[in-house]
Amino acid sequence: MNVELALPENGVGLVAPKVAHFAEPLKLRSGAVLSDYRLMYETYGELNAERSNAVLVCHALNASHHVAGWYADDPKNVGWWDNMVGPGKPLDTDRFFVLGVNNIGGCHGSTGPASNDTATGKPYGASFPVITVEDWVAAQARFADRLGIDRFCAVMGGSLGAMQALQWTIDQPQRVAHAIVIAAAPKLSTQNIAFNEVARQAIISDPDFHGGDYYAFATVPRRGLRIARMIGHITYLSDDAMMERFGRVLRADDFRFHFDVDFEVESYLRYQGEKFAEVFDANTYLRITRALDYFDPAKQHGGSLTRALASTQASFLVISFTSDWRFAPARSREIVKALLDNKRNVSYAEIDAPHGHDAFLLDNAHYHEVVREYFNRLARELAARAEP
Amino acid sequence: MNVELALPENGVGLVAPKVAHFAEPLKLRSGAVLSDYRLMYETYGELNAERSNAVLVCHALNASHHVAGWYADDPKNVGWWDNMVGPGKPLDTDRFFVLGVNNIGGCHGSTGPASNDTATGKPYGASFPVITVEDWVAAQARFADRLGIDRFCAVMGGSLGAMQALQWTIDQPQRVAHAIVIAAAPKLSTQNIAFNEVARQAIISDPDFHGGDYYAFATVPRRGLRIARMIGHITYLSDDAMMERFGRVLRADDFRFHFDVDFEVESYLRYQGEKFAEVFDANTYLRITRALDYFDPAKQHGGSLTRALASTQASFLVISFTSDWRFAPARSREIVKALLDNKRNVSYAEIDAPHGHDAFLLDNAHYHEVVREYFNRLARELAARAEP
Repeated sequence: MNVELALPENGVGLVAPKVAHFAEPLKLRSGAVLSDYRLMYETYGELNAERSNAVLVCHALNASHHVAGWYADDPKNVGWWDNMVGPGKPLDTDRFFVLGVNNIGGCHGSTGPASNDTATGKPYGASFPVITVEDWVAAQARFADRLGIDRFCAVMGGSLGAMQALQWTIDQPQRVAHAIVIAAAPKLSTQNIAFNEVARQAIISDPDFHGGDYYAFATVPRRGLRIARMIGHITYLSDDAMMERFGRVLRADDFRFHFDVDFEVESYLRYQGEKFAEVFDANTYLRITRALDYFDPAKQHGGSLTRALASTQASFLVISFTSDWRFAPARSREIVKALLDNKRNVSYAEIDAPHGHDAFLLDNAHYHEVVREYFNRLARELAARAEP
Repeated sequence: MNVELALPENGVGLVAPKVAHFAEPLKLRSGAVLSDYRLMYETYGELNAERSNAVLVCHALNASHHVAGWYADDPKNVGWWDNMVGPGKPLDTDRFFVLGVNNIGGCHGSTGPASNDTATGKPYGASFPVITVEDWVAAQARFADRLGIDRFCAVMGGSLGAMQALQWTIDQPQRVAHAIVIAAAPKLSTQNIAFNEVARQAIISDPDFHGGDYYAFATVPRRGLRIARMIGHITYLSDDAMMERFGRVLRADDFRFHFDVDFEVESYLRYQGEKFAEVFDANTYLRITRALDYFDPAKQHGGSLTRALASTQASFLVISFTSDWRFAPARSREIVKALLDNKRNVSYAEIDAPHGHDAFLLDNAHYHEVVREYFNRLARELAARAEP
């Protein structure tokens, strides 16, 4: 029996995360300073001689630097965008050098609330600062310096990852040739913030949270994390997709007149909640949802997204999904309009997909074809520039 | 200074709740039996000599028998549908006799989980049975017997109240002349169940829940109730209504980089959660959400709503609201279609309202006019029948 048979074929295959240490302090938008920090990252493909084929893939709430491939010691842990990134895949690692970085404040190896604060020798916990999308972009830009990448061929992401791609084009306009902005919004709606707030309150009000310093108590606010994840999960799926997948199917033959699992969807949500609570750090969840709340490039421009995007120089591919009610197509169209107001080069695709917000992670032929064609164009541009 | 000046004018005014005791056991759909129980109720207007002008108003999750008016000892506690029910109002108490009953399992005076079980002398707590919409209808029908009301001129409600009105037409077809079914669905969607499940899990996983027997511990699962209410509240409002009302308005001049209240909507949700947790019983919340989950008249008819409604004899007014994403207009149209399949007399109004599910409680001129005209028609029918 060959265990590798079960692993994804045609992918980047075996990968290993790497760590980059930064001793230079990073001043955050909040005013707080991270005196030193580390970033966990992975790369796939080869950086070409001109260092012109680098693509930065930014991750969303529940993901990391582990974009593609699998680990020798944990072969089932396949990268979160393995269907998108690999040899011959839409983002083709035979042609592009792909970089995934775990965000600061995360819980997958980069410095975050569970890391030891070198000043105290204890986990940061509650003292870990609130971070923003701008801070992540600043840290990623500094990392690009170290890698010798002056300019990304593309910065790409879905959801919160797409917000980072957009922020790159604002904060580092000369360093992004193309931005691929998938399932995004230019800022959260009131309802989006409201869902985040309920999730945070579930965590903060969990007695095991201990004001954020639960590491010292050897507890985890598991109850709060479960609830947070269950709420999140509902917003990632469309009503139709949930109906299609679970309907009102019961575990038993009939109602059992109790509060344990009756409907399959209850079992699914509980399972997702449990799984998440085992691996995710609650302090990270608070900070990532806050970064989402605070993302609002138009705010410093009197609410004008058009003015916020005036400094951008990149070309854009914007993609939305019809059934996404978290960040509906109308939200992507706000971005497209503001870019067109600035006469930016924009391609926009509204993909007919039933899966809701999660569609950006799924293998939809039309969606993947749009991304593939866009990268084919980028590859042709690179080839043309490389010619003598 | 006259404190009454601040009270609603043109309403039913001062009211007082009454209690009806039932010593006959009530067998529930679950198989459990309530050996005896009480119902808290209010009435407005006068029952006519023919006993033909009675309208039963059924309540939804967070309401009670207190439909209209105010209490002498608590004048700010105005009935939940005071804008709909009163002299000269759409449901005109000068012409109709209106009955509001707190559902069994509730926490406003009717027998519920916090009531003493006469068998033990202690609160029911976890032992209080799971109840269904059918059980409520059965209890209401028995109560109508006692009041000498053979047939309701109308049974009416919004949301879960509307589901009771619909169930009345199925279970007691000869006893309902008209059913007014507002902001309803013929059964919950998977997403609806999912939100209920998260709310229940927030309550059940609260350490103060004690398996439902928190009364004995003198605790209340306040954290869980807060979260449950916050989730519910988001689903009652439309995205647009939240945006309109709170936008992204901040409490301070700028972001404060913390997890306390930054956005006004956070403050609002916390306030609603706190208020609810102070007055509502957690065990009631579990049971009412379960009654919602289980409501599915088509289930016993192979999934056919048309067949489920074949036995109905009532005429129907069905109303939905464009921005209601909890029970969207399409859900009401399923009911209308099944009634038309059965050649029932149906009026349907889809009200253009921005407020979401909560619109059924609000004073929308078009909506109220539709209800008023419907009751005008009923009043004419009554008058015609009363003529010699």
